[in-house]
Amino acid sequence: MALIVQKYGGTSVGSPERIMAVAEKVKRFRAAGHDMVVVVSAMSGETDRLIKLAKSVHAEPPARELDVAIATGEQVTIALLSMALEKIGCPARSYTGSQVHILTDNAYGKARILKIDETRMRDDLQQGRVVVVAGFQGVDEHGNITTLGRGGSDTTGVALAAALKADECQIYTDVDGVYTTDPRVVPQARRLDKITFEEMLEMASLGSKVLQIRSVEFAGKYKVPLRVLSSFEEGPGTLITYEENEMEAPLISGIAFNRDEAKITIRGVPDKPGIAAQILGDIGKGNINVDMIVQNVGADGTTDFTFTVHRADYKKALDILQRVAKDLKAREVTGDDKIVKISVVGVGMRSHAGIASQMFKTLADEGINIQMISTSEIKISVVVDEKYLELAVRALHSAFGLDKAPAA
Amino acid sequence: MALIVQKYGGTSVGSPERIMAVAEKVKRFRAAGHDMVVVVSAMSGETDRLIKLAKSVHAEPPARELDVAIATGEQVTIALLSMALEKIGCPARSYTGSQVHILTDNAYGKARILKIDETRMRDDLQQGRVVVVAGFQGVDEHGNITTLGRGGSDTTGVALAAALKADECQIYTDVDGVYTTDPRVVPQARRLDKITFEEMLEMASLGSKVLQIRSVEFAGKYKVPLRVLSSFEEGPGTLITYEENEMEAPLISGIAFNRDEAKITIRGVPDKPGIAAQILGDIGKGNINVDMIVQNVGADGTTDFTFTVHRADYKKALDILQRVAKDLKAREVTGDDKIVKISVVGVGMRSHAGIASQMFKTLADEGINIQMISTSEIKISVVVDEKYLELAVRALHSAFGLDKAPAA
Repeated sequence: MALIVQKYGGTSVGSPERIMAVAEKVKRFRAAGHDMVVVVSAMSGETDRLIKLAKSVHAEPPARELDVAIATGEQVTIALLSMALEKIGCPARSYTGSQVHILTDNAYGKARILKIDETRMRDDLQQGRVVVVAGFQGVDEHGNITTLGRGGSDTTGVALAAALKADECQIYTDVDGVYTTDPRVVPQARRLDKITFEEMLEMASLGSKVLQIRSVEFAGKYKVPLRVLSSFEEGPGTLITYEENEMEAPLISGIAFNRDEAKITIRGVPDKPGIAAQILGDIGKGNINVDMIVQNVGADGTTDFTFTVHRADYKKALDILQRVAKDLKAREVTGDDKIVKISVVGVGMRSHAGIASQMFKTLADEGINIQMISTSEIKISVVVDEKYLELAVRALHSAFGLDKAPAA
Repeated sequence: MALIVQKYGGTSVGSPERIMAVAEKVKRFRAAGHDMVVVVSAMSGETDRLIKLAKSVHAEPPARELDVAIATGEQVTIALLSMALEKIGCPARSYTGSQVHILTDNAYGKARILKIDETRMRDDLQQGRVVVVAGFQGVDEHGNITTLGRGGSDTTGVALAAALKADECQIYTDVDGVYTTDPRVVPQARRLDKITFEEMLEMASLGSKVLQIRSVEFAGKYKVPLRVLSSFEEGPGTLITYEENEMEAPLISGIAFNRDEAKITIRGVPDKPGIAAQILGDIGKGNINVDMIVQNVGADGTTDFTFTVHRADYKKALDILQRVAKDLKAREVTGDDKIVKISVVGVGMRSHAGIASQMFKTLADEGINIQMISTSEIKISVVVDEKYLELAVRALHSAFGLDKAPAA
């Protein structure tokens, strides 16, 4: 008998029929003797409906009140799922974030969880009830309703699992696990049975949008055993592990990519301390997130500085950079929003030389020019022209042996 | 400068445009220097939508979970109204029933308010904010969400006014006040500037469905000055007063009527103690509310017993009575669901004889047969054939001088 926290997203609870299906699934786990805590999102479309309603009253709704409105989406789902469970003879009780004291800071719309009081949930579990908790929401120290931001229900699930020291946190989504790469690009892509926490972090942030990145970080902090599964198909999903020293770690676990990038280069800026901070400071003040950053030292006491941003922020970032360039007396600012980022990810590469050169050779063999390179301990990313995306991903997937299942 | 509690129903907040109109109205009161607490219902149709959603999951939704679901309706409205107020430069803050500690018992779906903590509201008022509170909902001592039953937002408004010792509680509806009778039946019907609490109670329970009866009782208990006004038209509305000894109290304030009645008679039951209790006990167990009750003593040691029920409960009540009659060896059970109840209401009749005979003579002059009579201190009710409803109401309205405005 284990304590399992399950999280079901908006699509999984998108209709009364799907809610009944979730209830049946939860009941099967309960019947197998497990204590069950279930976190749910708002029914698909509901959060957008509420935001639209709010915007029809106020173009920029005050953050506190927007949270009051959108928190109702999950509140409806917890009630419906509890009803569904009761209907099939499975005692259940619903709780809002406030009712189980998911204490957060008061950053409305993007609050962070500070503490969870698990007493009430433990009482219910001991009395044989399924505990159904609203994802995405909490309450600050003054009793104000807060929300955790998009995808926050994943974080709620992981945080509850951490607070309850659950044996496993299962995140149900519309995919059946984490893949070596996007199957729409590479038909041979395979589901991974396991992936390390660090790899998952790199995969998630690079666009394999299976789990909200914050929930993965949270899971890593508390070493919560995290599994990604499909709501709609049976299967073991992908388990996120914390085993650092596995003997047979594969070199490369997957090929991630991101289509939404744009790059901006500022050339001929004085090569002296503080320049990078000055350039990125103004970008940060514009609320623009920067992804890759590369700096090359030039020959004449000046340097070139290139970074990538989300394609939606491209124009705004370019405008800011034009002003910065003027201040810095830089030579020129150029940009390109027709680029993509491709990364090979794997804990195995830590102890194996040659991954980078194999990656670059594979791309060169296909005639693909590399525009930027950035590396971490378990990841190598390159920026290439967007027209090469599919070709590059398929070539790398094959070159690193991901097309075929590993020897057991 | 006064402290005013306003309550707006579902129709008044039924769209973003109407919510903006409510905000403008509240702002005008605020600009006049008043402290404002505003109670709102769910947007019209929203509660029904949520109940339907719940029933699509569970035909008889567990009461606790149904309350969790439907309480979201008001929560959305408080957020939207606060946004609307902020938009027009009127600082506001929304609160759920739970957040202002509207403590209730735990009778889900029909909870009663036990206590309200007004500290937080007073703080906001002192800081110049409009306080926007969700009607219809509260929280029990264990933090479970409760609702007060249909029309409960009126009760929330009155309860907040009582807790805050407000100078006036204004209930905004889709009518502009309490009328001497239904203007659709008597075109000469007039809006009353004032009505006593006792009269309002009789008018409300007799079918002038302006205010939820519980909210009127609550207002009476705490002597809350209560005013009924229109959301859509300007006007003074009708003030409910507690002035017991007004010199010039009119004899009759209004003619109320109820189309939804049916009567059932059980004849020839033994005339001994406990019979009435036995008959009504079984009706009560069937969850059927009884309105008028009349008992005549017969000649042969038996009695006849007649009562009225809501027309929707007629068949069920008749079935129950057939069984009771058998047990009691009563002679027969008869019924009629083509009847209406008409009442004249007025505190003035307390000190004036002759109202009853004037009423009966008026009906007789029109050839209307009276089937049942029931009286209270400030009300005389008769049951007549439903075909006479309009004729009877018009005749009484005229006979008691209600067609013309009283001398000032």
